[in-house]
Amino acid sequence: MQVQVHPMWESYPKIKADLLSVLQMVESHVRIHDKNIESTIRDLIYSGGKLLRPAYTLLCSQIGSASSQEKERSIAVAAALETLHMATLVHDDVIDEADTRHSNPTIHTQKGNQFAIYSGDYLFCVCFTILSKHASSLAHLEFNARSMEKILTGELDQLNSRYRTVASVKDYLSRISGKTAQLFAVSCYSGAITSDASRRQAVTAWNMGHYIGMAFQIMDDVLDFKGDSQTLGKPSMADIRQGIYTLPLLYAMKAKPNVLHPLLAKKEALTENDLMQIMEIVEETRGVEKAQQVAEKYTNKALKALAKLPDGEYKRTLYEITTNLLHRTV
Amino acid sequence: MQVQVHPMWESYPKIKADLLSVLQMVESHVRIHDKNIESTIRDLIYSGGKLLRPAYTLLCSQIGSASSQEKERSIAVAAALETLHMATLVHDDVIDEADTRHSNPTIHTQKGNQFAIYSGDYLFCVCFTILSKHASSLAHLEFNARSMEKILTGELDQLNSRYRTVASVKDYLSRISGKTAQLFAVSCYSGAITSDASRRQAVTAWNMGHYIGMAFQIMDDVLDFKGDSQTLGKPSMADIRQGIYTLPLLYAMKAKPNVLHPLLAKKEALTENDLMQIMEIVEETRGVEKAQQVAEKYTNKALKALAKLPDGEYKRTLYEITTNLLHRTV
Repeated sequence: MQVQVHPMWESYPKIKADLLSVLQMVESHVRIHDKNIESTIRDLIYSGGKLLRPAYTLLCSQIGSASSQEKERSIAVAAALETLHMATLVHDDVIDEADTRHSNPTIHTQKGNQFAIYSGDYLFCVCFTILSKHASSLAHLEFNARSMEKILTGELDQLNSRYRTVASVKDYLSRISGKTAQLFAVSCYSGAITSDASRRQAVTAWNMGHYIGMAFQIMDDVLDFKGDSQTLGKPSMADIRQGIYTLPLLYAMKAKPNVLHPLLAKKEALTENDLMQIMEIVEETRGVEKAQQVAEKYTNKALKALAKLPDGEYKRTLYEITTNLLHRTV
Repeated sequence: MQVQVHPMWESYPKIKADLLSVLQMVESHVRIHDKNIESTIRDLIYSGGKLLRPAYTLLCSQIGSASSQEKERSIAVAAALETLHMATLVHDDVIDEADTRHSNPTIHTQKGNQFAIYSGDYLFCVCFTILSKHASSLAHLEFNARSMEKILTGELDQLNSRYRTVASVKDYLSRISGKTAQLFAVSCYSGAITSDASRRQAVTAWNMGHYIGMAFQIMDDVLDFKGDSQTLGKPSMADIRQGIYTLPLLYAMKAKPNVLHPLLAKKEALTENDLMQIMEIVEETRGVEKAQQVAEKYTNKALKALAKLPDGEYKRTLYEITTNLLHRTV
């Protein structure tokens, strides 16, 4: 497999080079006696994800004025966070029974659920190995471990609220805050602190990351209602069958509970026809537009936070990738 | 649920009290917004495991001469290692499709595989939170993270070598060294270093733990060939159907490959009758006795390592629980 980073970084050669170092650092920590297993995990590392979280870490590591010696540390922190992200993706794919990710067959499809579960666990450990080797302090590490706990409790929360038709918009926002926004916030914050940014700047980076993560997840959920399995690379509407009701649907449920609740009560038994009907109701009640407006609000909050950070090339890059990301159509 | 530790600790009131502190420390770190989820995980903590690994940590934390202020640290390290063990058990139960553990329904039986996968992940993070809060140094933490990686690669190795009829005794020993002995070794070693034991004493504790773990796993596998599902609390012979060939069977395969290989080639399709036949061949070829002899060798090595440690009450306790553990019949 040829080593490469996602084409979205073509226009940013410095970030692209650093992201390659990030992937190489992850790879250098994957050392498994059985070379067959090692190569499966190596393929995962280079499987072409967007590397958004490590990119935010790297960009935010230019907020402060730390010396270039800190460069390696920011690459390490970015590598640890990407490893964590990979670990959760591998487990998510088992849970969602997803067959492909970035057009490649998922690990559990290739090697079975058991292999995927332990591979994810292994990657969790690699994440902590990298962090403990490079973190600036035990306190920083504890902070990271606690953040990761929040990500997992977000996932658990989501599972536990499946098929809950009384779920409110507030519940949804709290869920995605743990599940997605937390890791974006940690990525930005960790970058800032490796650069010796001030406390206030680090908090601004945290907030920016949180808002980006919120907008990102809402857009992801919105696109599920717009795209088909080809443009999105994962089966749309899968969430609904699994009882995960996202923002566009929640708005529709608010508007037409009497039509939607009996349909949703079918749970896994929802037919293609039912799903088409649900999509029509979401369209009719303008669920997608309303959700998009919420995403827009978070995007604006993110850009407002970004505006407070010190000027520099990194800031322009952050602005570009953030606006592109949150206005994407796929 | 009444808080209690396993009855095997009744005769050791000091250890029993410390183990209770260990469980309480784990519990104090489990803080989840959704109280329903929190209580499922709390039940797991108090579900009545033997707590062997934290007990070894606590006992080995009396090797050195550290002040009593270090007591909290040894309880924390023991808590982290037990949390790690719980995380792997939750995932193991998903992988083995086990319905009960310690006579309680497993998490995945109660709440589904998805919940179990994320709960295990959450416990991994809790383990690291506890470690990073209480570890003496980043180097100690890195050591722990690397040890955990070895445990997972042991599990991955085991999965990858399933149904491999050419597996040798050496492969088996290397597999259980990662999968089981590693955590016993880390438990003993970590106890020793929190007590400021000498480098040589810490290495002796490591070796002792490694030998105990090896003997423990071999005995576990031996008991699978002796017990029935009632005395063992888990379905015997499950390993064979899953293609995990343990030591008694490996010896039988060496002695009668022509009879066993065609039988084992049936994999998941093995009938009860086939399994009975396999058990008879293992008995005929004295596979169980041969495996027990290997366990005995490791037990003796463990006791020899133990003998090198400084005298004290902890040493007598270590001797008693180790000999009881490795001569158990259930």
